[in-house]
Amino acid sequence: MARDFEDHCWKDVVDPDTLQIYQAYRRKTYVGDKPAVLAIDLYNKAYLGGDRPVKEVDRQFSGSCGENAWRALPPTQKLFAASRRAGIPVIYTTRHVDTGGVHSTNRNASREADDIYDIKAELAPQADELVIYKERASAFFGTPLIAHLQQKRIDSLIICGESTSGCVRASAVDAYSHGYHVVLAEECCFDRSLLSHKVNLFDMHHKYCDVMHLDEVIAHLASQPAVKKAS
Amino acid sequence: MARDFEDHCWKDVVDPDTLQIYQAYRRKTYVGDKPAVLAIDLYNKAYLGGDRPVKEVDRQFSGSCGENAWRALPPTQKLFAASRRAGIPVIYTTRHVDTGGVHSTNRNASREADDIYDIKAELAPQADELVIYKERASAFFGTPLIAHLQQKRIDSLIICGESTSGCVRASAVDAYSHGYHVVLAEECCFDRSLLSHKVNLFDMHHKYCDVMHLDEVIAHLASQPAVKKAS
Amino acid sequence: MARDFEDHCWKDVVDPDTLQIYQAYRRKTYVGDKPAVLAIDLYNKAYLGGDRPVKEVDRQFSGSCGENAWRALPPTQKLFAASRRAGIPVIYTTRHVDTGGVHSTNRNASREADDIYDIKAELAPQADELVIYKERASAFFGTPLIAHLQQKRIDSLIICGESTSGCVRASAVDAYSHGYHVVLAEECCFDRSLLSHKVNLFDMHHKYCDVMHLDEVIAHLASQPAVKKAS
Amino acid sequence: MARDFEDHCWKDVVDPDTLQIYQAYRRKTYVGDKPAVLAIDLYNKAYLGGDRPVKEVDRQFSGSCGENAWRALPPTQKLFAASRRAGIPVIYTTRHVDTGGVHSTNRNASREADDIYDIKAELAPQADELVIYKERASAFFGTPLIAHLQQKRIDSLIICGESTSGCVRASAVDAYSHGYHVVLAEECCFDRSLLSHKVNLFDMHHKYCDVMHLDEVIAHLASQPAVKKAS
Repeated sequence: MARDFEDHCWKDVVDPDTLQIYQAYRRKTYVGDKPAVLAIDLYNKAYLGGDRPVKEVDRQFSGSCGENAWRALPPTQKLFAASRRAGIPVIYTTRHVDTGGVHSTNRNASREADDIYDIKAELAPQADELVIYKERASAFFGTPLIAHLQQKRIDSLIICGESTSGCVRASAVDAYSHGYHVVLAEECCFDRSLLSHKVNLFDMHHKYCDVMHLDEVIAHLASQPAVKKAS
Repeated sequence: MARDFEDHCWKDVVDPDTLQIYQAYRRKTYVGDKPAVLAIDLYNKAYLGGDRPVKEVDRQFSGSCGENAWRALPPTQKLFAASRRAGIPVIYTTRHVDTGGVHSTNRNASREADDIYDIKAELAPQADELVIYKERASAFFGTPLIAHLQQKRIDSLIICGESTSGCVRASAVDAYSHGYHVVLAEECCFDRSLLSHKVNLFDMHHKYCDVMHLDEVIAHLASQPAVKKAS
Repeated sequence: MARDFEDHCWKDVVDPDTLQIYQAYRRKTYVGDKPAVLAIDLYNKAYLGGDRPVKEVDRQFSGSCGENAWRALPPTQKLFAASRRAGIPVIYTTRHVDTGGVHSTNRNASREADDIYDIKAELAPQADELVIYKERASAFFGTPLIAHLQQKRIDSLIICGESTSGCVRASAVDAYSHGYHVVLAEECCFDRSLLSHKVNLFDMHHKYCDVMHLDEVIAHLASQPAVKKAS
Repeated sequence: MARDFEDHCWKDVVDPDTLQIYQAYRRKTYVGDKPAVLAIDLYNKAYLGGDRPVKEVDRQFSGSCGENAWRALPPTQKLFAASRRAGIPVIYTTRHVDTGGVHSTNRNASREADDIYDIKAELAPQADELVIYKERASAFFGTPLIAHLQQKRIDSLIICGESTSGCVRASAVDAYSHGYHVVLAEECCFDRSLLSHKVNLFDMHHKYCDVMHLDEVIAHLASQPAVKKAS
């Protein structure tokens, strides 16, 4: 719990001069009031090719996060279990296979199988959980997410999923802009590029979000009185 | 003109395996139709303490980008001059000193002088140019920018300013989400952290924007017929 | 063509004093450049119970616009045909049957058949036409419509559909806010309440939109050179 | 308190058939949890020319609501006093005199005095109250209002001001779309056109908001424990 503000995965890529410049952002991190988990793009496509290096799976499955995705799978299952125990809603994002030409990034896309945007079975939504379909990187852009959050009286978010440098970042920045306190569960975020993963977590931690280790988030959730799920 | 898609400042920090993974994003970059320049947060605060290393100016002027800001000043003057010659509008963002508690990042702020959010004199807006006041990182969030772009029939943006990893990135992602073709003028973007600058340009180039060198942008603007400025 | 600015369906409900107060809004109406048709909520539910008075169909089919819907059907077919001939895209809105609790109005809803939000067969989208699924009154709220409009370089809208005092109005106000010139095709808009229909058209004509008669819109479209459809 | 759902100012303009059609919207009205007052455009311009019929003041002061504005002044003072006693924040909207060409409606505007968009002295904001500057009809469009509401943990709104058929309506619809429970304080809303005032309140009451009489709202506020003002 008493870890340092900079005790995170970016330690080996951000130099001491830069850390010193960012001293002004130091503060106590915390999980906010009335949180929801926002699980970004945990669909099959991210896991294609299996638990192997990204550069290997990428040859056949462009867009897969390979071993980075698989490494985050057990921690994400733990996060979901602890959240549901504490009565905290889990909200998912994914996308439709065909969106009429509006895409979340500029990647040259080829034809895609029908189930690649289904949520990975091990992380599947429960019957009453909300799935938001988006066409852009941010979970807020072009979706009714803000209305659902307001109707459920959710006041903060715990964000996980992929990619750290893409849809997670765009969603986290938008959540901060809308006035939410945002936690990123470090071990539950992943990317195809480790450097982008680390630098984006560094950027967000200092500017917009509290990057917290999963055990810190879990300890917080376990300390909450069990509440019945919001209808 | 015929430079490689990856011939940019991130070459010395992104490893070959990662570049290979991102092959699917290769495409021809270009300045879009009916562009406007969007100049992000070129206010005095970014230049405080003068043309010295960030870690030195930061002691007295938290938030200054020091020598990184000053290095981008002449290229940005060139970009503005070429844009005005070609009849392309320059739109600025800045912020009010006091915004009632909604801030663009989590930095611990102290009291600030009255002119620190005035646009730097060397880059000042001309009499008829639009200045957007924002409270969050993105030039689109909580501002009427989209209405002004639509009324001026602007169909693409050339973005410059600071910080690459903060307000430039948030604005560029939002511009892409809204359907604009976005160019980032590499030498006219700056940040306090060189690593964040490089990795964010890398991220945006592959996902959302065309990062172009200033000479490529200038060559494009010079090739356009001179048009009279939109009223 | 040379009809008076106030020669519209509201003449019999708005008194002369009020018309005089609104003199300052008089101007020449016109169809804007690069328009798209935005067809609001032309789904089966609006036509249920057939071409009979609303108070009769309402007993069995709450939400039906009865004879008001059926009266607007042939003019709307004409509008669509003329638009397609002129190469102008037709964009539809509808909604999903189940949206997890976020609704476009406060009506007490009962269980609904599966096809009630399918577009009415006589007005059905063609294979390549865009359908936007929304959960709120406005076609812009919580949808990626703005990105599609921008990507297609659409600069103005011709709005039709239902209800005039609900989703048409909310969509028209949002379109104006975003900077689009908006035309409402009078004979192609409908409502369950004639008074609300007339007063809302009056409000929008003076504040935000050009309410035009269908023959004026058709004459404009027929005068355009036939263009091939945008891809 | 036990007034009928339809016991409002629109009784003399909406016919019985229409009221019957709208039966499905009947429900119990209420002030929501953690409300804020949203006071729309209570600036000097609305009161110019004094407490006289709109058609008289309009000759000299286009845009004035004349006697309709003045009639709503004492009730609005009561609403503000009761809200402040109950620790409920009052948030104002107004606009800047010059907004670079983006306007809230299509009115042909002439040059305007510098103080016409200052809030009317009798209703002036207190030192710590928020004023939102907008360029369009809705208080949400192109403003950071949503971030302020979220940061203050406001979960519902009590809307008053002008015009009922313009900025009040656009703001109320947007508030509903964002997921807020919205109350309109009937006697504190006004318009230049009585017919538009009544029909717009009717529309909003059935579709999006609870139109409540001021005495009902005051009774609710008086029943709340006095709380200290949110910082």
